[in-house]
Amino acid sequence: MEIVILLFEGMTALDALGPYEVLSKMPGATVRFAAKKSGIITPDSGVSFLNADHKLKDIETADILVIPGGHPLAVKPMMEDEETLAFIRRLHATSKWTTSVCTGSLILGAAGLLQGLQATTHWACHDILAEYGATPTLQRVVQQGKIITAAGVSSGIDMGLTLAALEYGDESGMWIQLMIEYDPQPPFDAGSPEKAPAHLVESVRQAVRG
Amino acid sequence: MEIVILLFEGMTALDALGPYEVLSKMPGATVRFAAKKSGIITPDSGVSFLNADHKLKDIETADILVIPGGHPLAVKPMMEDEETLAFIRRLHATSKWTTSVCTGSLILGAAGLLQGLQATTHWACHDILAEYGATPTLQRVVQQGKIITAAGVSSGIDMGLTLAALEYGDESGMWIQLMIEYDPQPPFDAGSPEKAPAHLVESVRQAVRG
Repeated sequence: MEIVILLFEGMTALDALGPYEVLSKMPGATVRFAAKKSGIITPDSGVSFLNADHKLKDIETADILVIPGGHPLAVKPMMEDEETLAFIRRLHATSKWTTSVCTGSLILGAAGLLQGLQATTHWACHDILAEYGATPTLQRVVQQGKIITAAGVSSGIDMGLTLAALEYGDESGMWIQLMIEYDPQPPFDAGSPEKAPAHLVESVRQAVRG
Repeated sequence: MEIVILLFEGMTALDALGPYEVLSKMPGATVRFAAKKSGIITPDSGVSFLNADHKLKDIETADILVIPGGHPLAVKPMMEDEETLAFIRRLHATSKWTTSVCTGSLILGAAGLLQGLQATTHWACHDILAEYGATPTLQRVVQQGKIITAAGVSSGIDMGLTLAALEYGDESGMWIQLMIEYDPQPPFDAGSPEKAPAHLVESVRQAVRG
């Protein structure tokens, strides 16, 4: 099971690393991290701690493609980059699963993959999805055929477990969940705009879109 | 708020990246990733995608120290490495918070920091904690003074939110939770040994300890 994960400057690291931690534990999984240029990648924190061991142009196929997101200002250059869009379309042509986390779905949309499909993204960016022909849905993980989009940042863990179960059965998903002790107990119940105080929703929306 | 996160060969990436994603969003946060040698680090998947931008010996202080874990076979060399243990003791001497995720607590224990304290770790490794004078507890996040230990892998996200709230107030924790859309919806309820089927508990225990 060959997994390819896109990396790019300014991305949100957990978008990629959540699915990575789950999917890399599937039987026989191999993972490649690919970027336009191989080498060090600096995500949105400004700290240069990620390394892409492959270039987009050197990768022809993947069983699972994972497209992470980031702040819209970091994602937009990827949505407009022909090499990145061609890479996504090329791998999607033969992938078993094409997936995104957070605003990674906007890159899938820009590649033309979400036309007429339901899809999700970070809650503060749902309206952008519609510009690419997708119907935004508030579900945390949205499967449409072989395309799976996940909501903001941390949802990639739930997406990874869903995908592991689709591919290897529920017990495989549960095995990985138990291995990473994913028994979430957030100290607050404020992880969605429906649950968080309105002024925090507005503040985060401003930080994402403002 | 200066955050220092230990990296080492064979570690579990999400142990470090969960807290990173949360803590790096605190006001004015800076993050340094430190390893015995700076440069590329290969975590337990065997994929060389992490980069340490600092060496342990070059770091004297941190407001928050994060010690991730990994498979006991990867953690043991760190528990026996005098440079690593001295680094932890040195930063702990003046840290505001000294934290661990998963079997990272065994490294804290080997550094002598957990004597007489309650602490947690990956559920399959609780018995090892006792060897270092700690009382293992089944809580997901355990605070004892300025030391916070978290349970397996994914618990570092909950730990990070708890710590952000301790430092900057509940609304800051909720703001970050909403930003990373941490509204967990795992497809299964199998994230702890109390909840997972017994044969999966035994299988994961074998994989960790066998």
